[in-house]
Formats: sequence, structure tokens, C-alpha cells
Amino acid sequence: MYREQIKVIDCTVRDGGLINNHYFTDEFVRAVYQALTKAGIDYMEFGYRSSRELYPPEEFGAWKYCDDDKIRQIIDGIESDVKISVMVDSYRVKEQQFAPADESPIDMIRAATYVKYIDSAVELINKCHDLGYETTCNIMAVSKESEPDLIESLEQLAKTPVDVVYVVDSFGALYCEQIEYLVKLYKKHLPGKTIGVHCHNNQQLAFGNTIEGIIHDANFVDGSLYGIGRGPGNCCLELLVGFLKNPKFNLTPILKVIQDYMLPMLKEIEWGYILPYMVTGILNEHPRLAIAYRQTEDKDKYAEFYEKIREAHD
Amino acid sequence: MYREQIKVIDCTVRDGGLINNHYFTDEFVRAVYQALTKAGIDYMEFGYRSSRELYPPEEFGAWKYCDDDKIRQIIDGIESDVKISVMVDSYRVKEQQFAPADESPIDMIRAATYVKYIDSAVELINKCHDLGYETTCNIMAVSKESEPDLIESLEQLAKTPVDVVYVVDSFGALYCEQIEYLVKLYKKHLPGKTIGVHCHNNQQLAFGNTIEGIIHDANFVDGSLYGIGRGPGNCCLELLVGFLKNPKFNLTPILKVIQDYMLPMLKEIEWGYILPYMVTGILNEHPRLAIAYRQTEDKDKYAEFYEKIREAHD
Repeated sequence: MYREQIKVIDCTVRDGGLINNHYFTDEFVRAVYQALTKAGIDYMEFGYRSSRELYPPEEFGAWKYCDDDKIRQIIDGIESDVKISVMVDSYRVKEQQFAPADESPIDMIRAATYVKYIDSAVELINKCHDLGYETTCNIMAVSKESEPDLIESLEQLAKTPVDVVYVVDSFGALYCEQIEYLVKLYKKHLPGKTIGVHCHNNQQLAFGNTIEGIIHDANFVDGSLYGIGRGPGNCCLELLVGFLKNPKFNLTPILKVIQDYMLPMLKEIEWGYILPYMVTGILNEHPRLAIAYRQTEDKDKYAEFYEKIREAHD
Repeated sequence: MYREQIKVIDCTVRDGGLINNHYFTDEFVRAVYQALTKAGIDYMEFGYRSSRELYPPEEFGAWKYCDDDKIRQIIDGIESDVKISVMVDSYRVKEQQFAPADESPIDMIRAATYVKYIDSAVELINKCHDLGYETTCNIMAVSKESEPDLIESLEQLAKTPVDVVYVVDSFGALYCEQIEYLVKLYKKHLPGKTIGVHCHNNQQLAFGNTIEGIIHDANFVDGSLYGIGRGPGNCCLELLVGFLKNPKFNLTPILKVIQDYMLPMLKEIEWGYILPYMVTGILNEHPRLAIAYRQTEDKDKYAEFYEKIREAHD
């Protein structure tokens, strides 16, 4: 028993890139692509298509820009049904170029935006749709938005050719009842569109909330290998694949790439259940406070961190 | 907005004891008791009241037996509203003694059983109730039980004076829809009884499933500090307290005892999100297979473990 419409997007390289400035080796990115291919995953997100004017190339790795040629170099010679996506911060589009989709290895462009920048997302979506790409709109930090503003955004998106609109729990603050509420709200205001969910794991709810989204008919779901992502990370891809009963999925190659690449990586860069991020999740705050705290000598003084943030919060 | 009836039981020392043969220092147990007192937690479970004939004292620490005098020694001099519970495997009762409740520091006795041993739980519950204790029945490994057998057990329990009957996801195999189903089933067959949930974190669902239980009216919920417990451990107490809006709870002392005691302990003993346990959870198998695998040189060969278990499973 499974729902054929459900599509799984792996965000390992894109969301994981936020903790290492997108400096993944070609070998690693290729290994992920190969593993996802064998596992039957629907999409792999390679990173961002960012502006080199806004983000100077001496400060970031290749996956901050995701040039078509760079992606081609990785996938060259690998037979694969995995579609490729990149994310674009729609409010930071400058000189970046987008080739027509049939000349690009990219299949889908995901426009990330805040509600206040929704016009920029609409513009990017229209443009990318006209170029032949599949498109999504990922409205970030929805746990902080007022409902009338959010609804206005959804109604704007309803008029675009966007394929998927995502409920994005950027702060890892939402509980399952709120996921249910938002997925239903999105469906109501986006007739005919597909709904996606992208959850963060601050409170160990990324997987549970993704299931909640699926129950209420979200059909695009994001995960990453061993949950890699900024701070607490994302829904674990391996858990998602274990849950979805579609026989096209195969868990073994996913476990293999985790043991070969993610375990060693965890010794170099930090992600997972780390209490300062749990605190920002509980308080519905941006993880930047926790990121900064983890750079200090006090990084494991959780009680002090909580008291400090809560005082500022009340 | 909170539900006053919800009671939180901390299982740190009891479930955590399963990974160190119940050898916690008095200092640690006292620190936990003090932290729970300050945090406003309802119950603390100190361990098991086990038979010394079946479990020789040279092999286990004090919290395998939870003698009344030992508990008194820990709590001596601490002003506290925290109630005290111990667990008893009802099918392994031999020479253990239970004083009348008004002569014991223990408030609640939790009878752990499998469906097939339900008669022993009924006997223990009746006896402990007559001695003046609050009682619960924790029916373990419910994900493996056939529904008619389970219902028969529930109907037997309905006729006892037991206060609380628990849905126990021993294998960390249940998804939220199954938790909902079981809580409703228990409620139907246990009119007037309180329902509890005790979840394991194999699939990072312990907290999400506990919330699911609460939504469907479970009022006794178990957690442990930083999720300590065998293998993947339990629902994190700190997450539960962050979720429950009862103003009597205070998160700060919980974070403090985690940073002071649980972080250092994690360097000595292993628990948390560890993939062989994720695999046994997905396959609804007892964690013993993962425990054994983690003792071998291959402990991080997740793909091989999965293939091996799956073959035996199919």
C-alpha cells in the first residue's frame, strides 16, 4: 500500500551545504547521486543557484552556484532516473543565468522566499516555468507569519504555474497539529497545486511531522542523508524510505552511503539533536542564536542559553 | 492552555539502567531527583524491583532492586512533590517483598508484562493495590501482538483496580496512526481507566508519537533525560516539558542536569539515533539483534546489517 504521487527530494548537498559553505567534494556529490539512483529517490537537490556578485566565489564551494556544467561533470556517465533540482533565493536574484530547461541538466527550480518577498518568487517561478522547468515555491519560516499575509501569498501563487508549494518549518517549531492545519490551509488556497513539506529536526519532529504532512495529502517530501542540514538538520531520508511502502525504493544503498560518507563527515562538521537548537525550536526563533552560541566556549551550557533566549523572548 | 490531568513520568534511571546494568551512582540519582523536583515533574521511576534469586546482586547495581531503604537514602533531606515509581516484571516475581505503601517511599508500582503473562500482571496489580500503591500495567511489545489476544488482556485489566494501562512501543516500530489506533482501542476496552504511552526512539518518533497519544487522550506520558534508554532510548523529557504548557513545569533544571551529567555519561555509554536500532524499528524486531551487532567490529556496517535482518525477516 503506497501513494504513487508521493515524490521524495533529497536535500543532502543543498541543506548540508549550509554548514560547510557548500564545499563538498565532487567524489561525495557523485556518491550521493549514485546512491540515490540505486535507491530510487525521485529528486536530488544539488545546491543553490546563487549570485556570484552577492556571494563571492572565493568564499563558497561550487554548490552555492550549481552551474549547469558543474552538475554535468558530476552526473557524467551515470545512468539515472533521479531528477535534479536547485534552490534559488528568489529575493536574491541578480546576474544568475538560467538556460532553457532542455539545455540544462536541471529539471526543477525551487524558489525559496519569505512571505514579504513573494513577488520575487512569483517572478522567478514565471520565468523558470517559461524556460521549461518544474517549479516549487518554498515559503520559509511559516511559523512566524501572520495568517492573512500567508493567505495572500498563497492566493498569489495560486495564479502562477507553480507545481508545488511547500510548508517549510524553518525553525523546527511546529507540532503535528500545526502541520495538519497548514497543509489544509495551503490546499484550500491552492486548488490543483501539489503541497510539499520541508521540516527541521530541532525537536526531533522532522520525520513525524513529514508523516503528518503525508497523511493530510502533502505529496512532495524532503529528506537528507542521516538528516544532515544546518543545526539539527532535516528529516532523515533513511527514515522516510523505511516508511514509504513504494517498492521502487531500496534502503540498502542509502545505508551504505551513510556509513561510507556521512559517519566520517560527522566528525568534521556538526549537525543533529543539539540542545541550543532544540531551545530555538521550542521558542520559535531563528537558529542563528544557537549557531552563534555553538561557536563559544559555553556551547554546552544549555540551561544558561535557554534562560538568556527566553528572557529576550518574553 | 494545558490539560491538568497529564502526568509526566521520568524513566531516566529505570530505562537508562538497562544499558549499564543499573549501576548509577547515588550522586547521579540524587541529582536527577533534585532536578525533577525543581522542574515540577510528576513521577520519577528509580528502577526495577527485581528478584535477587533471578538476578544475582553481584551482577547488577542497586537500581535493579530499588530497596525501600536505598530509595530513602537518596531522597533524604530533599523537599519534593515528585512521586516515586518502580517497575516490576510481573512474570518474574519471586521472593521480592513489597511493604505497605504507607511504610514505603514508593507511590506507584508499574507492572511490566507481555500479553501472554497478563495473569501475572493482574495478580501483582491486585496485590499492590491492596497494599495501597498506585498501579499501572505496561503491556510491552504491543506492535507484535494479535488484536484478539490484546483485547482479551485489556478486558482482564478492566476488571482490576489498575489505575493506568500503557501502550508500550518496545520496538520503536509504531507510526502515529498506529498509536492513535491503539490508544483508542485501549480506551474502548478500559472504560474509566487512564491510558499511558511509552515510546522508543528507533525511528525518531518517540516524541511525535507521545504527542499523538496526548492528542487522543493519553494522560500518562514517559520521558527520560536526553532520551537515555536502551539503544535509541526514549522520548526526551526536555522535549515533553517544552511541549506541555503547564506552567508548573520548568525546563531550566532539566537542561542543567543534562549538561552536568548526561553529556559526560554519553561518552561512557551509548544511546540515541543509531542505525541498527533504526533498522530493527522499521522491521518491528526486538532490539537484541542491534545490541549484539553493536558489540562487533562491523557495528557501523548498516547496509550489511539491514540486508541480514531483512533476509531473516522475509
